Amino acid sequence: MTTREIARRAGVPHGAVSYHFAGKAELLRQAAVAGTEAALAGPVEIARGAGGLVEVVEAMLAWFASGELDDPAVALLLETARQAGRDPGLRELVAAIIAQYRAEVAELIKRDQRSGTVRSDVDAEGLAAIVAALFDGLLMHVILDPGLDAGRAIVALRTLVGAKR
Amino acid sequence: MTTREIARRAGVPHGAVSYHFAGKAELLRQAAVAGTEAALAGPVEIARGAGGLVEVVEAMLAWFASGELDDPAVALLLETARQAGRDPGLRELVAAIIAQYRAEVAELIKRDQRSGTVRSDVDAEGLAAIVAALFDGLLMHVILDPGLDAGRAIVALRTLVGAKR
Repeated sequence: MTTREIARRAGVPHGAVSYHFAGKAELLRQAAVAGTEAALAGPVEIARGAGGLVEVVEAMLAWFASGELDDPAVALLLETARQAGRDPGLRELVAAIIAQYRAEVAELIKRDQRSGTVRSDVDAEGLAAIVAALFDGLLMHVILDPGLDAGRAIVALRTLVGAKR
Repeated sequence: MTTREIARRAGVPHGAVSYHFAGKAELLRQAAVAGTEAALAGPVEIARGAGGLVEVVEAMLAWFASGELDDPAVALLLETARQAGRDPGLRELVAAIIAQYRAEVAELIKRDQRSGTVRSDVDAEGLAAIVAALFDGLLMHVILDPGLDAGRAIVALRTLVGAKR
């Protein structure tokens, strides 16, 4: 599809599209970033507002149980991951969003470690990277294998991070 | 590209391609499955031959440190994940490979839990799903954010699963 065709479908003059976006690659990149931001807005918001890591984990559990996996945002996320592999500009933008999520979760973990609700012998940054990567990895695996019980993995994570054994 | 063009580039008669593959979709599916099997052959072999979960985790650590991420197999894996979202036949085949990996890892975990090297209060199937999803999730995140230290996440995982605190 050309930018001219995109403009026609959007019902705007071609000039409006070519003025706002420096070519089709830039338009697609901005769409991918907007889609990724939308897909990650939920998790980032949850991490920012959460009282602790367990709340983040519970929210993950609820999200996987809700069956929102058919959302087009998920398909866009996978498409973005693939596309980012060959577009350094897109990759940088997406990396910043994921890094922000990781930073929010790491802050929660450090707070939890001080208050004693998360075990303190584990590296907070490493655990935050686990939480972020597990979210996307489980998402990918559930899409591939609808029979996979993501909830069981998340419950296991909750057991692993707990301060008490 | 047509099956005729594929046959020409492979230097075989068109009949050989159309005889072996029921159309281009089937050819692409089999290529995706072969690629996914090749990409997962390493991890599955490691899980099968490993003495325990810690060995699997150490192998993950070594793999991420080796910088083999630029391998075209990784790009194919992401492409396959995306493609599987809209092709139930491909999805079923890929799901079987991932499920096999999960089963191998779950067996290792159960053995480790009996011998006391992995904490026994965590669900073995849930933990195996974590290990498998974390592998692909970290892979995706490292591709998106080359600054991410996957090693730190894997070291944190090793701390989390250990029987001793």
